[in-house]
Amino acid sequence: MSDAASLDAADPLRRFRDAFELPRGIVYLAGHSLGPVSKAVVARVAQAVQNEWGHGLVGAWNTADWIGAPQRLGAKIAPLIGARSDEVIVADSVSVNLFKLAGALLAAAPGRKAILVEGGEFPTDMHIAQGLAALARAKVRFARKGTLAERIDARTGVIIVSHVHYRDASVRDMAALTAQAHAAGAEIVWDLSHSVGAIDVDLAGAGARFAVGCTYKYLNGGPGGPAFLYVARDHQERLANPISGWLGHADPFAFADRYEPAPGAQRFVSGTPPILAYAALEAALDLMAEAPGALRRAKSQALSERFLARVFAKKRPGLQLISPADPARRGGHVTLKHKDAYAVVKALIARGVIGDFRAPDAMRFAFPALTLTYGEADAAADALIEVLKTGVYRDPAFTVSAKVT
Amino acid sequence: MSDAASLDAADPLRRFRDAFELPRGIVYLAGHSLGPVSKAVVARVAQAVQNEWGHGLVGAWNTADWIGAPQRLGAKIAPLIGARSDEVIVADSVSVNLFKLAGALLAAAPGRKAILVEGGEFPTDMHIAQGLAALARAKVRFARKGTLAERIDARTGVIIVSHVHYRDASVRDMAALTAQAHAAGAEIVWDLSHSVGAIDVDLAGAGARFAVGCTYKYLNGGPGGPAFLYVARDHQERLANPISGWLGHADPFAFADRYEPAPGAQRFVSGTPPILAYAALEAALDLMAEAPGALRRAKSQALSERFLARVFAKKRPGLQLISPADPARRGGHVTLKHKDAYAVVKALIARGVIGDFRAPDAMRFAFPALTLTYGEADAAADALIEVLKTGVYRDPAFTVSAKVT
Repeated sequence: MSDAASLDAADPLRRFRDAFELPRGIVYLAGHSLGPVSKAVVARVAQAVQNEWGHGLVGAWNTADWIGAPQRLGAKIAPLIGARSDEVIVADSVSVNLFKLAGALLAAAPGRKAILVEGGEFPTDMHIAQGLAALARAKVRFARKGTLAERIDARTGVIIVSHVHYRDASVRDMAALTAQAHAAGAEIVWDLSHSVGAIDVDLAGAGARFAVGCTYKYLNGGPGGPAFLYVARDHQERLANPISGWLGHADPFAFADRYEPAPGAQRFVSGTPPILAYAALEAALDLMAEAPGALRRAKSQALSERFLARVFAKKRPGLQLISPADPARRGGHVTLKHKDAYAVVKALIARGVIGDFRAPDAMRFAFPALTLTYGEADAAADALIEVLKTGVYRDPAFTVSAKVT
Repeated sequence: MSDAASLDAADPLRRFRDAFELPRGIVYLAGHSLGPVSKAVVARVAQAVQNEWGHGLVGAWNTADWIGAPQRLGAKIAPLIGARSDEVIVADSVSVNLFKLAGALLAAAPGRKAILVEGGEFPTDMHIAQGLAALARAKVRFARKGTLAERIDARTGVIIVSHVHYRDASVRDMAALTAQAHAAGAEIVWDLSHSVGAIDVDLAGAGARFAVGCTYKYLNGGPGGPAFLYVARDHQERLANPISGWLGHADPFAFADRYEPAPGAQRFVSGTPPILAYAALEAALDLMAEAPGALRRAKSQALSERFLARVFAKKRPGLQLISPADPARRGGHVTLKHKDAYAVVKALIARGVIGDFRAPDAMRFAFPALTLTYGEADAAADALIEVLKTGVYRDPAFTVSAKVT
């Protein structure tokens, strides 16, 4: 195995690590939960607050093109997910966007009243289906993990499913499931929250028509940053946004009584966008656009493989990889199982290695290419080995429960 | 009429003017559209970006209590609207919040399938009803302006109505309409976007049960800042949020398959909140909390009365006040009608006096107490008089149309 210092020295993405504001002494492996802030984002937000809002005042809706932010930022996300620039808008949260798309699809297929989800998904992917079903008099069907495809039938209107699983990081075969669903007359809304920015996403290549995703993980867009929504061009005009807010109107500033949807994906904008959050995201997207996706994916895989090889160079009783062993079938993070995972994660955090815990026994570590070095991947592995070897995690300081997000 | 300089010198709210970052040479009368930024907001956003996100990273969900932001900020809005601290949450946009509340109310009253709105309302108040009705198989009824109360009947489930009208600034009698609606078995969702922070709002006193509002006008919370939602305590447990996202779950971090609503108003949170936008709003609310509401309202009325008295000290042919003449029946802005309103507004902007235009013939000027001086109110009146007297607005530079938000 090559020396980490040499790999870092030769890394074509090395400069990006310095573009981020990571505290000294921290190895940050929680980018699957919240990506870190870059210097460009710090500057861009200050500019939005002081120059655009402060000096531009209400006129900045035009002079700083705030009004165009949902489409402009959508166009910047499009190349990351295999979409065309007019197929993506940035708006609301993943939860609200799931509601909009699944609601629009239910309304468009009145004979198909079932929303199909898989148990164990990220909660909002399952929960949104439940409130929507109650309002639209539809039903939610739960498939056991791994049985989603078998459960598609003639009553299935919409399937909500993650591309990369939040827990074990497994990648679902988008093209295969999409083809199956379409063959059965059903539609899929893909949740790209754990894949966008982490792995290659090719919506067009997979024949996918609808997707949502979040921007605060691998896109480093900021805590709770605005989400995005994708509708393939051929399906935009046939769908109605159930949350028909004024900024999705064909002519918002006509102040007309009757709602008329804007052409294209713009109709899926509902209310006024939180511009300061958009400013952070835009700077993050501009920075990421400088890093070729193939380089990012290759480095991220190299980092996680290196981490795993180092951790499992010897037998680690009680520690188990529950993510796919093949890096091509994994997203941006790896998930390890240990009965004391909670205490192990806390002991690692005390050593400056930030991963996260998911009840009851999982710990997750992400390896984003732009914000992590090979040296840090080694350091993280060494810290985990040490924590397990010494048993320091059994210290009561680490085993007392507290809320972990 | 007292000298403006003396009034400003004696103004107990004078210090607030200096707490805001308004460009020199500008008289800003568009606070009904976008309130200006305060120095406290500039500092707070920088702190959220650099300290909380930059240093706290994912841990800031707990250490900076990001996770509590919807409730914490709601509790800070509560005293401005006559609500208790557990009756308000900050979430999403006005559009999305209208959808959530109106959707919850329709579902709770299955026999009442009509949503009643008034024509000429702010668009989203009418538009949201339309998409919701299509999804929930309800109907939208439009009342002509001024006839809303007459149109309430046994089929009316939900009424969506503004407290202060966006266009003419008229204040609706909240207690009277609420009593009428409840007597007929209907519910009202009040839109406080143009009243919160501008005039006294007493939801509890008026018997109001449901409301939404925006934070980027008189609350100075930032462009597109997160909106709020109010549900009176006695009605929280009987309603289900149709946009049942994971952060409205009773135990979001249990990652359970089944959605169980959180107790109280928290169930109306859907997705992950955009924290940077919340940071701006929180600083703005903390600043406003230092200014007693009675002082704010009295000064705002004095400012608008002074402006109108000065403008109409002589006859102004072609210029007409379309807001109520009684300041107690007006919100925070005044609306003047002129056939060349668009050009007049542009000519005023060229003189540094920022109001706005609403097609076809209205101009709006807001008089928020914290960010405006008596001297500025006089200067605005003088500029308007001069523009009208000289006819400079007829210059082609001001009459060419462009998008005005």
